[in-house]
Amino acid sequence: MQQPPRPRLTPAINDVRRMVRDALPAGGLVLVGLSGGADSLALAAGCAFEAGKAGIRAGAVIVDHALQAGSADVAATAAGQAAMLGLAPVLVLRVTVGHEAAGDGPEAAARTARYAAFDTALAETGASHILLGHTLDDQAETVLLGLARGSGPTSLQGMATASGPYLRPLLGLRRSVTRQFCADAGLAPWQDPHNLEPRFTRVRVRETVLPLLERELGPGVAEALARTAEQLREDSATLDALARGISNELGEPAGDGTHRVSVAVLAASPPALRQRSIRFFAEREYGVSLGRVHTLAVARLVTDWHGQKALDLPGIRVVRQDGWLIFSGPGPAPSKGPSRSHGTTRH
Amino acid sequence: MQQPPRPRLTPAINDVRRMVRDALPAGGLVLVGLSGGADSLALAAGCAFEAGKAGIRAGAVIVDHALQAGSADVAATAAGQAAMLGLAPVLVLRVTVGHEAAGDGPEAAARTARYAAFDTALAETGASHILLGHTLDDQAETVLLGLARGSGPTSLQGMATASGPYLRPLLGLRRSVTRQFCADAGLAPWQDPHNLEPRFTRVRVRETVLPLLERELGPGVAEALARTAEQLREDSATLDALARGISNELGEPAGDGTHRVSVAVLAASPPALRQRSIRFFAEREYGVSLGRVHTLAVARLVTDWHGQKALDLPGIRVVRQDGWLIFSGPGPAPSKGPSRSHGTTRH
Repeated sequence: MQQPPRPRLTPAINDVRRMVRDALPAGGLVLVGLSGGADSLALAAGCAFEAGKAGIRAGAVIVDHALQAGSADVAATAAGQAAMLGLAPVLVLRVTVGHEAAGDGPEAAARTARYAAFDTALAETGASHILLGHTLDDQAETVLLGLARGSGPTSLQGMATASGPYLRPLLGLRRSVTRQFCADAGLAPWQDPHNLEPRFTRVRVRETVLPLLERELGPGVAEALARTAEQLREDSATLDALARGISNELGEPAGDGTHRVSVAVLAASPPALRQRSIRFFAEREYGVSLGRVHTLAVARLVTDWHGQKALDLPGIRVVRQDGWLIFSGPGPAPSKGPSRSHGTTRH
Repeated sequence: MQQPPRPRLTPAINDVRRMVRDALPAGGLVLVGLSGGADSLALAAGCAFEAGKAGIRAGAVIVDHALQAGSADVAATAAGQAAMLGLAPVLVLRVTVGHEAAGDGPEAAARTARYAAFDTALAETGASHILLGHTLDDQAETVLLGLARGSGPTSLQGMATASGPYLRPLLGLRRSVTRQFCADAGLAPWQDPHNLEPRFTRVRVRETVLPLLERELGPGVAEALARTAEQLREDSATLDALARGISNELGEPAGDGTHRVSVAVLAASPPALRQRSIRFFAEREYGVSLGRVHTLAVARLVTDWHGQKALDLPGIRVVRQDGWLIFSGPGPAPSKGPSRSHGTTRH
């Protein structure tokens, strides 16, 4: 096995290594998700160094999205860098980015393909984790993109430092630190031309929106967005856990595909838990993903009852009768046929 | 009493009136906080109309901040418009905007003086509520200002539609609707020159930041920010209420100004509640407002215990002993002197 290069210690190198050290699991094999860009290249170098010291194995997985001319060369260069750093095994996985997901845009399709490849790499190598090079700047961009979508706190949570097998050790570091790391360590990162394509919303956020916010609102906006994301993630996780507890107790199946839910139980919950419980219940029993407007309409059957008629929502029907909310599938409740009580139909 | 004018019904007039109608309390007297600008002028006109129909009384309070030349004339014009609309009583209160609050900026100082005047108006007239003309645009600006501060979900909550005696009936309407209302109703709103002063951060958000976000991220950003604020307010209210319940049970006074708090109770709470409970407890017993970094340090005495030494935080000292967190005032715990158990010292 080749020795990793021994760069002089600089603040950037220390910062990246410390972040990786704090994030590494106790043993086994981890893989760095490597694009060859500055973020993941700095992560790969930091991981090669720290894994050796911690006595765990570190490899790399490089996903060739085959979306740009020469992508195989980019992948081969990154694989060479990974091997030079002492990472093993080094996998290069070529994927086909689907076009059926085009509704979510090309970035979402590429992401879906990439995470599928990561899952393959985990299965093939037996690695416990994939380390990803997302930085604080990526987090701030994600929060702003979520704000623009406006789908509520969930869309502002950004990325988790740890989510299943995925770890993001650099989520607290600015992107400038990973660039400095590469310069200090004599590593030449790949410059993805897609990172300058203004047709991607994320690129516009990075190149135009965040710099303007920093200029008009004062420096530290990226850090502020990242801090906010962290707290929102914590708040939502707590509320979700409490609401799942309530939701799991909700709903007595009536055998004909309908369920009844106690108005009193929902009335006793504070609004944020009541609304989440209703959403979780509709999702679990009817495979329906209620948006905020529809969730609030159901909640008003509890909190603002004045004899409303049945709510016919997409994929679900809710009516209040004698202190119960009666949930059923779309249209009139089926009088026969297979029970829907655990259906997973999506509408 | 003069009759309010009877403008032709337009969508803008209908929208404002409907919002006011849904917000008005059941009886008594309400006051519109009137600056003479389009937002509060539309609110005043809508309120004059709807209050009459609902059989309640509506007056107006105009605060002359005395910050601009001619401010007394602006106030007198607004008072004339209010009287013409049929509002009564109409109060004009001249205030002195303090300079001691300059650390928070001139906008904050003016706001403090304004709300103090509103309180005076409530007391003098016996009105139950003040109606304020904040629109969805104001809400979006507030959320962006909060984001830039980065003080977490609390700073993103924006303004409440109802908070104590203050009601904001137009918080769901775009500012353009109030302008259209005034045009449709033949009302000439005051154009506050401060609204174009780029030295105010809020003006830069309005004139530069929000338009850029709409251009780069797509239309609907203002609405998205307002929706997010609404949900965050709901989530935070629920978490705060649950955490106050926990916090109220925390802390056995030891008589010497120290309190002990059960590690087991804090450990049993999910993170968002544990951290809020710690903050509420420190605030209540020691008058200390713990920031996030310090709150997390206290929480780690519970969740990541590895024999840390005592935490000396601004205004408070926390040490873990035998399954308890021992809280005390700054420095060594006083051996005599007045009990601090209900102190309100701020540091």
